[in-house]
Amino acid sequence: MPALSEVPRTHPRYASLMTREKLVEGVGRGITGLNGLIAQGRGEALDYLIGEVTTAPAMEAERAAAAMLLLAEGPVLSVNGNAAALVPKEMVALANKIGAPLEVNIFYRTEERVKKIADLLRGLGAGTVYGDEPDAQIPGLDHARAKAARGGIYDADVVFVPLEDGDRCEALVKMGKRVITVDLNPLSRTARTSTVTIVDNVVRALPNLISLVDEMAGQDEAELRRLLEGYDNRAVLRRSVEEMISHLTHQFSALDG
Amino acid sequence: MPALSEVPRTHPRYASLMTREKLVEGVGRGITGLNGLIAQGRGEALDYLIGEVTTAPAMEAERAAAAMLLLAEGPVLSVNGNAAALVPKEMVALANKIGAPLEVNIFYRTEERVKKIADLLRGLGAGTVYGDEPDAQIPGLDHARAKAARGGIYDADVVFVPLEDGDRCEALVKMGKRVITVDLNPLSRTARTSTVTIVDNVVRALPNLISLVDEMAGQDEAELRRLLEGYDNRAVLRRSVEEMISHLTHQFSALDG
Repeated sequence: MPALSEVPRTHPRYASLMTREKLVEGVGRGITGLNGLIAQGRGEALDYLIGEVTTAPAMEAERAAAAMLLLAEGPVLSVNGNAAALVPKEMVALANKIGAPLEVNIFYRTEERVKKIADLLRGLGAGTVYGDEPDAQIPGLDHARAKAARGGIYDADVVFVPLEDGDRCEALVKMGKRVITVDLNPLSRTARTSTVTIVDNVVRALPNLISLVDEMAGQDEAELRRLLEGYDNRAVLRRSVEEMISHLTHQFSALDG
Repeated sequence: MPALSEVPRTHPRYASLMTREKLVEGVGRGITGLNGLIAQGRGEALDYLIGEVTTAPAMEAERAAAAMLLLAEGPVLSVNGNAAALVPKEMVALANKIGAPLEVNIFYRTEERVKKIADLLRGLGAGTVYGDEPDAQIPGLDHARAKAARGGIYDADVVFVPLEDGDRCEALVKMGKRVITVDLNPLSRTARTSTVTIVDNVVRALPNLISLVDEMAGQDEAELRRLLEGYDNRAVLRRSVEEMISHLTHQFSALDG
């Protein structure tokens, strides 16, 4: 692959290529796994199907997520290998804005990779970073995947876990936590299981969340609670699928041109 | 990632996981590039959208492709890093059945990777394998991408290039070649540019093509020509998009359950 600097900013797929390059760099730096590249590809294809923009239902989910994070008593932000490669600064910025710790949580756990991601986040100004010294287990997951930290995900009331897998998401919900995820597949088990599912590219969702938290921090709690009470995740997922169908239908008409 | 042997055959996503593992192994063996993993992910997401089966329009394209290969005077089969990891035996078997040479043709060319893929194909019983000593240039592509072999792709009348990129596909068509591709995105430039576009997973398309070539080898030329004359690639692409929309609509109804 050409280096980032070789891709001209005018390239029609510049944003997508930049994202791809960051992931490949993440593999080189030992923070992203090879399976993370395959996950990125799945995301690329699905993002293409929603037109590579934040859709109206995604924005509604992001607004609900911001309210939930602001109302949470002990929110925690979970960071995996892809989030660490794509939006590390944004994860730290969001954590600092809401006074939440971060916790490194990767699918194919190696202590070395966890340590590298934790160090990366600390280097970017993170306060508390959990993950490299887990002292608790999430019930219902096998040993390596179950690892969690007291004071971190294990004790959180609200967990923000972008790009999470279905099993772990379900296990967190079963523990009684409210789970916010970012997943471009509105039909995935993660999407269906989570409390708030943001069907958006993580590189757009994080900057949006940071802006929304800034904007909504001044609202009173009752207002935020009303917003959350009116939020229907299943309806948002349905509208996300409709966005895909509508986009495919438009592209499909272009085939006749 | 767990080793292949650790994934139980009863796992609902066994086929998809096996495919993924083969790619990761391909990276380990130096025949697949990291960008090939991202491409695999895109394919996974799109395959999911057609229900991970060979659709009716895909089968029609495969039938046209088999006829075109049987009628060709000098067909050549192009092999990239993902095809080499996923269907190397099938590529060799198809080449041997129709008496065609293979040519290694990778997106991010390194001589070492080309050599490894060529050796792999030779080890699997391939006859002529081009690619490691290119002696011609495809017009309209930059130097590394333009490399081709006389007697191989450069002189072919029909080129079978699964998983090809848009630029190279277009350049081959401009040279007057008939191009058969396998691409799970019916809206991609490759899909729109090719003479016959098979919107199917390459791990299903290759076995299908081998069976079809066996079955159709006995038909007379006039019959094969009639089949090809009646083939409309644009209509097949349109029906492939309809398959995706229909599958999404079904899944979407399941969200209400």
